[in-house]
Amino acid sequence: MAGKIEGIFCPHMVPFDAAGNINETELRRLIDFLIERGISGLYPNGSTGEFVRLTYEERKRVIEIVAEQVRKAGRDVPILAGAAEANIDMTVDTLNYYADLGCRAGALIAPSYYPMSQESIRDYFAEIADRTRLDILLYNIPQFSNEIAVKTVVSLCEHPRIVGTKDSARDLPRFMNTMNKIRPIRPDFSFLIGCEEILLASLIMGGDGGTIATSGVVPEMIMKLYNHFRDGRIEEATRIQYQMLDLIEAMLTGGDFPEGFRAGMTVRGFNMGRGRNHHSAAAKLHIETIARTVQCLISEHGLVDPPAEGCDLAGIDETTVRQIVQRVMAQLGR
Amino acid sequence: MAGKIEGIFCPHMVPFDAAGNINETELRRLIDFLIERGISGLYPNGSTGEFVRLTYEERKRVIEIVAEQVRKAGRDVPILAGAAEANIDMTVDTLNYYADLGCRAGALIAPSYYPMSQESIRDYFAEIADRTRLDILLYNIPQFSNEIAVKTVVSLCEHPRIVGTKDSARDLPRFMNTMNKIRPIRPDFSFLIGCEEILLASLIMGGDGGTIATSGVVPEMIMKLYNHFRDGRIEEATRIQYQMLDLIEAMLTGGDFPEGFRAGMTVRGFNMGRGRNHHSAAAKLHIETIARTVQCLISEHGLVDPPAEGCDLAGIDETTVRQIVQRVMAQLGR
Amino acid sequence: MAGKIEGIFCPHMVPFDAAGNINETELRRLIDFLIERGISGLYPNGSTGEFVRLTYEERKRVIEIVAEQVRKAGRDVPILAGAAEANIDMTVDTLNYYADLGCRAGALIAPSYYPMSQESIRDYFAEIADRTRLDILLYNIPQFSNEIAVKTVVSLCEHPRIVGTKDSARDLPRFMNTMNKIRPIRPDFSFLIGCEEILLASLIMGGDGGTIATSGVVPEMIMKLYNHFRDGRIEEATRIQYQMLDLIEAMLTGGDFPEGFRAGMTVRGFNMGRGRNHHSAAAKLHIETIARTVQCLISEHGLVDPPAEGCDLAGIDETTVRQIVQRVMAQLGR
Amino acid sequence: MAGKIEGIFCPHMVPFDAAGNINETELRRLIDFLIERGISGLYPNGSTGEFVRLTYEERKRVIEIVAEQVRKAGRDVPILAGAAEANIDMTVDTLNYYADLGCRAGALIAPSYYPMSQESIRDYFAEIADRTRLDILLYNIPQFSNEIAVKTVVSLCEHPRIVGTKDSARDLPRFMNTMNKIRPIRPDFSFLIGCEEILLASLIMGGDGGTIATSGVVPEMIMKLYNHFRDGRIEEATRIQYQMLDLIEAMLTGGDFPEGFRAGMTVRGFNMGRGRNHHSAAAKLHIETIARTVQCLISEHGLVDPPAEGCDLAGIDETTVRQIVQRVMAQLGR
Repeated sequence: MAGKIEGIFCPHMVPFDAAGNINETELRRLIDFLIERGISGLYPNGSTGEFVRLTYEERKRVIEIVAEQVRKAGRDVPILAGAAEANIDMTVDTLNYYADLGCRAGALIAPSYYPMSQESIRDYFAEIADRTRLDILLYNIPQFSNEIAVKTVVSLCEHPRIVGTKDSARDLPRFMNTMNKIRPIRPDFSFLIGCEEILLASLIMGGDGGTIATSGVVPEMIMKLYNHFRDGRIEEATRIQYQMLDLIEAMLTGGDFPEGFRAGMTVRGFNMGRGRNHHSAAAKLHIETIARTVQCLISEHGLVDPPAEGCDLAGIDETTVRQIVQRVMAQLGR
Repeated sequence: MAGKIEGIFCPHMVPFDAAGNINETELRRLIDFLIERGISGLYPNGSTGEFVRLTYEERKRVIEIVAEQVRKAGRDVPILAGAAEANIDMTVDTLNYYADLGCRAGALIAPSYYPMSQESIRDYFAEIADRTRLDILLYNIPQFSNEIAVKTVVSLCEHPRIVGTKDSARDLPRFMNTMNKIRPIRPDFSFLIGCEEILLASLIMGGDGGTIATSGVVPEMIMKLYNHFRDGRIEEATRIQYQMLDLIEAMLTGGDFPEGFRAGMTVRGFNMGRGRNHHSAAAKLHIETIARTVQCLISEHGLVDPPAEGCDLAGIDETTVRQIVQRVMAQLGR
Repeated sequence: MAGKIEGIFCPHMVPFDAAGNINETELRRLIDFLIERGISGLYPNGSTGEFVRLTYEERKRVIEIVAEQVRKAGRDVPILAGAAEANIDMTVDTLNYYADLGCRAGALIAPSYYPMSQESIRDYFAEIADRTRLDILLYNIPQFSNEIAVKTVVSLCEHPRIVGTKDSARDLPRFMNTMNKIRPIRPDFSFLIGCEEILLASLIMGGDGGTIATSGVVPEMIMKLYNHFRDGRIEEATRIQYQMLDLIEAMLTGGDFPEGFRAGMTVRGFNMGRGRNHHSAAAKLHIETIARTVQCLISEHGLVDPPAEGCDLAGIDETTVRQIVQRVMAQLGR
Repeated sequence: MAGKIEGIFCPHMVPFDAAGNINETELRRLIDFLIERGISGLYPNGSTGEFVRLTYEERKRVIEIVAEQVRKAGRDVPILAGAAEANIDMTVDTLNYYADLGCRAGALIAPSYYPMSQESIRDYFAEIADRTRLDILLYNIPQFSNEIAVKTVVSLCEHPRIVGTKDSARDLPRFMNTMNKIRPIRPDFSFLIGCEEILLASLIMGGDGGTIATSGVVPEMIMKLYNHFRDGRIEEATRIQYQMLDLIEAMLTGGDFPEGFRAGMTVRGFNMGRGRNHHSAAAKLHIETIARTVQCLISEHGLVDPPAEGCDLAGIDETTVRQIVQRVMAQLGR
C-alpha cells in the first residue's frame, strides 16, 4: 500500500443509543467532526473504542461506517482498524475484510487473557502476517494484554506485512530503544506512541505520530500541537502539551477507563449513551462529575462554554451543591 | 434451584477438528468419559476450556452438547456454565439460555481487559444477578482478569441469585478469609477452589469442592482423592495430592496455559487438535514434548501405557532421541 | 547441631524507650512472657522484629539479650536468629557470632533492594553457607525482598549447613511443591510456614511448624492450636485457626506492617514505644485505633479485659467518641 | 543555601580493594576523573553507589572523601549526598553531618523493605525535613523502594527544606505531571531525572538535569549531550542520546544492577574490585563478558581502545574463544 503511517490517529469511541445498540447516526456525526477538525487518521476499534465490549458483527459494522464517512468526506484520512478477534482464523478473516473496505492497516494487540510466551506471541503475529492482505501494526498495551517485548517487535520487523508499532506502554525508554534497533534495519517502519502525556516528547525523539484518545475530545488542540511540532515551533507545542496534562489526568483517572473519555465526548455535545458494563446509577452519577471537571478544563480553551454553575468549586455554596445533586438524582430516577 | 454446589467440577477442554472447528463427536466422547469416571459436575467454558478463543455461537453450542450428554447419561451431573460475554446484556441473555438448558449455575469472571474499580465490579455483578434466571458463582481469577476483592464477594453474598464463589487465585488465606466472613451470614454459599495443588487443603479447611483442570486428564485420581476426603481418610487423600504435584506442574508450566492440559488429554486418547492461537510448528513440537512427560507421569498410576521409548530420560541413547525428533519433524512436515 | 527445627517460633518485636532506644528491661520481660507460655522457639530480628530499622550493633544486642533470657529460663528453647546484614562478609561474621551465643540457626533473606538473578541468589547463599559455623534457613519473603525461587531452594538443599526454609510467601502451592521436591533428597530439611492464616493447613500438609507473628500477641492460642494438631485433634485446631482470622487481619492490615502487631503487644501490657519510622501524631492516633480493635478481639478469648468503653462500636454515643479522641489528643500533646 | 540544583550529577560507584574494603586512593582518583571531565555535580551513596551494601560508617566516609576531593579541586561542584539510613533519627543525624561537610543537599528514598502508606511516607519526610539543617531531594525509585506518589511530592513541595525531586521511575508522564503541578506553587523546585534513556527528553520537557549513572563511565559524552542541549543544539544532543542507548542497555541489563556499571568503570581503567554480594567465580566471569561488550561500545567513541581480540564477535574463531575463557578461568584460579 501507500507510504509511511504517520500523524495523529484518533482512537474514537462508539456512541450507544437508549437500547444499548450502536447509535449509527451519532457515530457518523462524530467521525465527520473529527475529519472536519483535520485529524490525520482514524483508529476505530481501539481500546478507547471498547472493541472488547462489542460483538464480532458490531466491530465490523463500526469499520464499515467509518470507511463510508471517510469516503463521503472525500479526504485522504487513513483508517487504522483495531482487528483483534478471538483467534487467528477470525483475525485473518477480519483483516482481509478491512482491506476490502479500504483501511490502511490493522492494529493488533497480542492475545489477551492468558499469559503467552514471547515465542508464542511472535509465531502468532507471523502467521497472521503471512495470511493477510492488510498491513499490520503491532499494538503493545501491557496494561490490558500480553506485552510484546522489544525483542519480539524486532524479530518481526522485517516481515513485509508488518509496517509499524503502536506503543501504549507509557514507557518512552522502551519506545526509543525500539526505534533505535529497528530504524537501521527497516527505515520505513512506523512508530506511533499511545501515551497522551508524552506525545510531543516522542515526536521530538523521532516518533512518527500517535494514537491519542484526547484527540477525540479536543482534536483542535492535539492537531495544533502536532502542527506546531511539524513546523518547528517546539516552544508553542510544549505549551499545549502542558496545557493538556490536567485534562488528560481528569479523563484517564476519572472512573474506569474509558469512562472519562466518554464524559469528555458528552461535553463536546455528543450523545454517547452509557457504558455497556457501567449501567448502575452510581456509574451515571460518577460520569456526571467527571464531565463537569472536563467541561471546566476544556472551556478554558474556548472550545465549550463553562458549566452554568461556574468552575470555581471552592466558591460554590452548599445550596448549589445540593441542587446539582438533586438534579442528577432526579435524572437518575427517570 | 436445588441444593448447595459441591464436589469436583471438571473445567474440560474442547477438541478441535483438522479445520479448527469444534469436534463435536470427540467432545461428546470426552464428556461421557468424565461422567463414566464419576466426576461430580461439569464446567464447560471455563478458562481451561478456552472460552475466549471461541465465538459467541460456539460457546452456546458447547453448553448445548454438554447438556445433551448429561441428559443421555441419565445421571445427576450438575453443569456449571462459564458465561462471561462481551457485556452485561449479552451475559444476561446467555445465562438465561443456559438456565433453559438445565444448567445448575453460571460462573462469571469480573470483566477482563480494562481494569475496573471494585465498586464497578460489584455493580456489574449485582445488575446481572438482578436480571438473570440462573444462579451465579463469582469466579475470581486475578491472573487473567480483574480481581474480585474479598470485600466485594462479601458485599454480594446476600443476593439470592449469587450462590457461591469459585476462586482460582492460588491464595488459601484469601479463600479462608472469604469463608470466614460469609459463612455466618449465608451458610449455604458455595466455596469452590480453583487451584489444583491445594484442593485437599481447601477441603480440610472447609471448602465445598473444586474446579480442577487435572480432573479432565486423570478423573480417576481426583475423584479418589475427593472420596477419600469425604470418607475421612485424610492420609490416603494426602498421598494422592502429593502424587499429583509433578503432573500438575508439568501441565501448568509446560507451555502457555492451557496447552499442557491439551497435551494431557491427548495422552488419554482424545484427538484434541491444535490450539487456536498456537498454530506454529514450534508449538506442535512443544506439545509433543509435554505430552511425553505427562504420559510418563500418568503411566506410573496405571491409567495409560508409558511411551514406547520408555521414561528413563537419562537412559535414552542419542539414536533414540534423534529418532523421536525425526518422527515429530516428519509429522510436522505433513 | 541438634535435630530438626520444628514447632512455633515467635518472630517477636523489640520495645523502644521514650528516647527511641531498645528498652532492654521490657524486651527481657517480653521474652520471659513467651517462654512461660510455652513457645517452641524464638525468632529475633525477623521482619516483625524490624531488623532493618535497627543498627548493626543493636541487632547483635537483641540476640545477646534473647540468648541470656533463654539461658536464665533453663529451658530448651531454640533461637532462630534473623541474620541478614549489608553484605556477605558482615553476614558471615554475624552468623558466627550468633553460633557462639548458642543460637540454633540463622534465618537469611535473599538480599533486598536490588533485584538479583536466581543464579546470583544461589551463589550468595552457597558462599555464606560455606563460610559459616551456624546452620542456615532460607527465608523467602517476596513481598519485601527478592524471591528465592523453588528451584533455587532445591539447588541448595543438599548443603550440610542449609537445614531448612522459612516461607512467608502466603503461597501454599509453592510450600507444598518445595516439600515435594526436597523431602526425597533430604528428609531432615525443615519447612516452616511464615503465613499466619494457613499455619494449620501447612502442618496438615506436612510442614514442620511456623514463624507466626501472632504468637507474640496470643502465644496461648497459637500453642493451643499447635498442640491440638500434634495430638491429632484437627477439629479443635481448625476452630482456633478460624477464631484467629479476624485478629490476624486486624493486625496485618491495620496500618503499615508491623504497626498492627505493635498495637497487639501494647494490648498485652507491654510498653512498646513508637515505631522508628512512624513518629507523627497521626501515626500514634492510628495505632490507638488498631489497639482498640485488637483488644476487643483478644478479650473474647479471655486473655485481656475489653476496653473500658466496651466493644460494641455501633452502640457508642457521640460523647464517648469525643472523649476517646480528646484523651488520645491530650496524650499526643504531652 | 545557594540556588537551584541543576545539571548532571554522577551517582558514582565505590571501588573496593582486595580485602573488600573501600579503596580510598582509587575513589579519590575516580572523583578527580569526574571533576576534570566537567561533571556538574557528584552524587555519592546513590543506588549505583551501592549504599545499602556499605556500613553506616562507610557511607559517612564516602561523603568525607568526596567532599575533600571537591575542596582540593577548588571548583564549585555541588554534592548531593545519598542519605537514607535505618530510621528517622539516624537519617537526621547523617544529613546534619553532611551539611557540616558542605554538601548541597541530601537525596532521600522513601523507606524500603516494608510497604508504607503514602500518608506515612509523607509524615516520614516531613519530620526529617523539620529536623535537619540540610536541603532534601525526594528520591523516587519504585523499582527498589516504596514509591513516593505524585500527590505526596506535591503535598511536601512547599516545605522550605525540601527543594526538589530526583525521579528514577523511568516514567516521563509522571515526571511531567509532577512538574506541571509543582512549578506554579514553587518555581525553584528542582526536577532531576534518574532514567538514562530519557535524559534529553526530560530536559526538553523542562527538567533541570539528571542523576545519570552512565556519566560515571562516559562523563565526556553525557556532558557533551547536556551542553549541546544548553546551547540549543537539540539535533546534536539527540544524536548523542541515541548513540548512548546500546551502551546504557548493556550496562543496565548485563548482570544484576549495578554490576554492568562496575564493568564499565573497569573499562575506563579503574580498579573497582568485586561486588560485595557477587563473590562467585561465575559472577566474575559474567562481569568480564559485560566489560568486553561495554569496551567495544565505548571504543567506538574513541574514549578507550577496543579489546585486543577485536569487537567483531561473529568473526572470532573457536580457538580465540577458548583462550579468552582459559585466561579468565586462570585469573579466577588465583
